[in-house]
Amino acid sequence: VHQPIAILDSGVGGLTVAKEIRRQLPQEPIVYFGDTARAPYGPRPAEEVARFTDQVIDYLLELKPKMVVIACNTATAVALESARKRLSIPVVGVIHPGARAAIKMTRNHIVGVIGTEGTIRSGAYTAALSQLSPGIQVVSLACPLFVPIVEKGVYGSPEVQPVVVQSLAPMRRFPIDCLILGCTHYPYLAPVISKVMGPEVSLISSAEETAREVSTILCHKGLLAGGWAKPVDQYFCSGDPHIFRRIAESLLQEEIKVTPVPWEVLNNM
Amino acid sequence: VHQPIAILDSGVGGLTVAKEIRRQLPQEPIVYFGDTARAPYGPRPAEEVARFTDQVIDYLLELKPKMVVIACNTATAVALESARKRLSIPVVGVIHPGARAAIKMTRNHIVGVIGTEGTIRSGAYTAALSQLSPGIQVVSLACPLFVPIVEKGVYGSPEVQPVVVQSLAPMRRFPIDCLILGCTHYPYLAPVISKVMGPEVSLISSAEETAREVSTILCHKGLLAGGWAKPVDQYFCSGDPHIFRRIAESLLQEEIKVTPVPWEVLNNM
Repeated sequence: VHQPIAILDSGVGGLTVAKEIRRQLPQEPIVYFGDTARAPYGPRPAEEVARFTDQVIDYLLELKPKMVVIACNTATAVALESARKRLSIPVVGVIHPGARAAIKMTRNHIVGVIGTEGTIRSGAYTAALSQLSPGIQVVSLACPLFVPIVEKGVYGSPEVQPVVVQSLAPMRRFPIDCLILGCTHYPYLAPVISKVMGPEVSLISSAEETAREVSTILCHKGLLAGGWAKPVDQYFCSGDPHIFRRIAESLLQEEIKVTPVPWEVLNNM
Repeated sequence: VHQPIAILDSGVGGLTVAKEIRRQLPQEPIVYFGDTARAPYGPRPAEEVARFTDQVIDYLLELKPKMVVIACNTATAVALESARKRLSIPVVGVIHPGARAAIKMTRNHIVGVIGTEGTIRSGAYTAALSQLSPGIQVVSLACPLFVPIVEKGVYGSPEVQPVVVQSLAPMRRFPIDCLILGCTHYPYLAPVISKVMGPEVSLISSAEETAREVSTILCHKGLLAGGWAKPVDQYFCSGDPHIFRRIAESLLQEEIKVTPVPWEVLNNM
């Protein structure tokens, strides 16, 4: 089925999911929307995040995707269920894939989750983990400083490490054996997070795990692309296309074309 | 949804899948059938394996499962597609989950697969891997001596290592970075296989990966059990129930009840 997979995020975080989908499913065309003009979603009220998410989904639906991936934990927490009810195509979020990977990986059943304030406040990871495996212990921590670092593109700077050390200090008091990066922006910071948490803590990336589940669902629904043509991906963002392109090209290691979409257009969806 | 997950295998191999489903989805009741009287399936003609698989599925359908897991690579290779067409409930095999995990894990895109003669001859792993990721190189090897070792319950014996060394010698000539254990019996031999292949080669267990995908599909179909009641599992086998119970209890670390089902009953399904 040669329709694209639609991926959306508040900004550049969902690109970590897009990159993994390109790697694990190289034949699938992708359309991506980063709502950079209205990022970050994390501190916003749930109703507002749900409305923004619906608007971006409606914009992407005009490109006739075969699947929608809400590649933002904050948006998944508040808008996944309603999007599933509203759309006739499969909708995949980023919370359950990370939760399932943690359940597969943990040996001591003490799992850490870091995310935005919105994600942590929603309790969505605790709910997903407990629904699947009631005996599991979940330690949650909001890290509100991480997304702005990534959206500004300064995640490689040496000043980042003290911020990460301080943000993660409360988590280091618990004997977790795996840590879910419960925000699709956090894989950009994974090298620093891993150094701070130490080698005994396995990091679980929403991005890798979600791509894996996208593959599972497409396969079970008979929706895989097949064939050999290299797909042409499309990127849209509501904010400055230059900073979006710079971060995207550095992550994807490839030149891309970015189409700016004013957020007023989204508001009228 | 409090119907059981039905799991079937030629013998005790699928118990590695059952164990992982119990670990990753502790609230889900399981019914298991090991067709030990007619194991191994690996050397049998494809038509015969397909017929046996259909018979065992039909037996399990009388227990009203919500999902069928064909926890045998040989049977998945020849009978998954027809079972999917025939049944109205989801049917999960063990080949695509391992293939997807390998694609997620490999960095050099050279993946090894070991399995029974039937599985390797079917080319099912090469097909699944290439369908998902056309650039991948697959090195396949049949290891016909492994299943009988496991079904006899002697997989812990010191005489096993030279057999594993000799069987895997052809695979060790290739620079694979991960090796799919393409037979649900092989996790019993994983410690020896890992020692022989060395630390650079990651082993991928069909069992862990299939349990993960069972969770994904149940979740997406709204079929998870929920609630807190500890489920009572049921085990059936067509051969000697004593040897089956001994191996199963050693693997599952728990006492179980095994109901013998003569294979003549299956033949009349």
